[in-house]
Amino acid sequence: MTNPRFDVVAIGNAIVDVLAHADEAFLDRHGMPKGSMTLIDAARADMIYDQMGPGVEVSGGSAANTVAGLAALGARAAYVGKVADDALGHIFRHDIKAIGAHYETAPLVNGTECGKSTARCLILVTPGGQRTMNTYLGACTALGPDDIDEEAVAAGLITYVEGYLWDEPSAKAAIRKAAAIAHEAGRKVAFTLSDSFCVDRHRDEFIDLASGQVDVLFANEAELKALYQTDDLDAAIAQVKSHVDVAAVTRSAEGSLVVVGDEVIPVSAEPVTEVVDTTGAGDLYAAGFLRGLTSGRSLTDCARMGSVCAAEIISHFGARPEVPSLADLVGERMGRAA
Amino acid sequence: MTNPRFDVVAIGNAIVDVLAHADEAFLDRHGMPKGSMTLIDAARADMIYDQMGPGVEVSGGSAANTVAGLAALGARAAYVGKVADDALGHIFRHDIKAIGAHYETAPLVNGTECGKSTARCLILVTPGGQRTMNTYLGACTALGPDDIDEEAVAAGLITYVEGYLWDEPSAKAAIRKAAAIAHEAGRKVAFTLSDSFCVDRHRDEFIDLASGQVDVLFANEAELKALYQTDDLDAAIAQVKSHVDVAAVTRSAEGSLVVVGDEVIPVSAEPVTEVVDTTGAGDLYAAGFLRGLTSGRSLTDCARMGSVCAAEIISHFGARPEVPSLADLVGERMGRAA
Repeated sequence: MTNPRFDVVAIGNAIVDVLAHADEAFLDRHGMPKGSMTLIDAARADMIYDQMGPGVEVSGGSAANTVAGLAALGARAAYVGKVADDALGHIFRHDIKAIGAHYETAPLVNGTECGKSTARCLILVTPGGQRTMNTYLGACTALGPDDIDEEAVAAGLITYVEGYLWDEPSAKAAIRKAAAIAHEAGRKVAFTLSDSFCVDRHRDEFIDLASGQVDVLFANEAELKALYQTDDLDAAIAQVKSHVDVAAVTRSAEGSLVVVGDEVIPVSAEPVTEVVDTTGAGDLYAAGFLRGLTSGRSLTDCARMGSVCAAEIISHFGARPEVPSLADLVGERMGRAA
Repeated sequence: MTNPRFDVVAIGNAIVDVLAHADEAFLDRHGMPKGSMTLIDAARADMIYDQMGPGVEVSGGSAANTVAGLAALGARAAYVGKVADDALGHIFRHDIKAIGAHYETAPLVNGTECGKSTARCLILVTPGGQRTMNTYLGACTALGPDDIDEEAVAAGLITYVEGYLWDEPSAKAAIRKAAAIAHEAGRKVAFTLSDSFCVDRHRDEFIDLASGQVDVLFANEAELKALYQTDDLDAAIAQVKSHVDVAAVTRSAEGSLVVVGDEVIPVSAEPVTEVVDTTGAGDLYAAGFLRGLTSGRSLTDCARMGSVCAAEIISHFGARPEVPSLADLVGERMGRAA
């Protein structure tokens, strides 16, 4: 095993978020369940964009948000995700490189011409701050095995993959390839279930993946229950412990549970003065947890670092960290609590 | 004079802002005077963008921000400004139409290929919230007389023009054409000096324009002094009153002065709990003032409406109004103070 060049190599859907305010009548009119994430095609994306209010554009994507958290924590992070060679792709590329991540995925050439422009997530923010998301995947669907940066994956302590990728066959092949390279190089593979609807779409394959190629699993309570088709969290935990080395199960205000062998470690959530926007909570929990893992911390510490990062992200709008240095915040909180 | 279809027709540079945090060392390294607005070419725009942190994209442009304010106040507004047929142009067009403005300026076809993509303003926000702006005008420089929406200008109570446009000969011709059409139709022409450096570049032409084609002039104290090359505000006021019917001179925390004939009406600034970001203060003052003018309010009321709008915009980040309805806020404040 050579000396690792990256702490984490993350693979995900490379998306630019477009945020606008909307009222509930807008959601009703367009048949959008409040708080949902729906995959949409180009025509519907154009239609919704046409109808929605003035927007703010900002780079997003679940695993990319985790990379932003990792970079803010001082970790060496690499990202793999597909954009097109268009203006939004240029924006995504700029932003992820500007946070200090290694990013070399080739853009999809002539993405616009072949109907696959850079992915965007049209986010309607309703009064109260809840987000309803409509994702046009575009160029993301062109991610394939050839996009896997073999050198980076082999040189990364942990390869982290988002479940959202699983909607495309070529992306599945890319993930399996990345996992194989990582394990061949003696590295670990982490996976997040991403979304309970995503779990419903791919349950059998996710269980197969978890039991065969995943070392560390991230899931919230709803996703884990969906995976094992049970309403009983203990029953789901009894199953997941036979599938992965470590599972980190997030439970919103109730904190998280770390499942390792027969042990279940409860870790409380970090107190938050005001919850402004819960988007990115899971992504940033993963960032804190992975930072702990790659710096040799105990699993309890990993979960606490995840909680601090999640608390920071839900205290403001947006899914990427806002504090000048998230690392200082985590150091301060962990020091205080140690 | 036919019945007007628009309260205000605004003409300006159509720009998408790209905001990122930066420290003062970044400004020093790139030779950017803190708080300045500098025009840059495409190569420098690419270089600065390459070096700056992760960004947030949002539609901007001085007169377009005024249009956003007018629309929020319930005014019927039209906008004239040039973008290219690229993704940023698409974003600008969407945003200005989404706020309810009439916008029919034809985009520059093949803007990217001919080296004129949609204008962007790279804004470095330093600790404390001050903004240093680098503007690449791109497609804006292609605005010409043919882009003037003659029907809209003739059908607008006031045609409002930003001084920033004056850097391009074809835009000057467009402004002169719009002013002539407006006056021919019995309408008024308003003009903002925009920036004291802009005034320095075009002093003689601005005085010529003011004395011949402008009815209502907007300027801050520094711009008015620059126009008449004096350090004495009273001396500048003595000159401006012979050039325009009405001048609204903004003085930051000291409020504004309305100059009309031999009268100078002082109006105090609206109190603000915390000044977060002064960008857009002048643009929104103009929005409030113009809304007052087009609804037949007294000049004192116009200036007070400008003050309320300016106070709202400097209380948060961004140069477009954030309150659900700026009209309600103005109504409430004007009612209270009446």
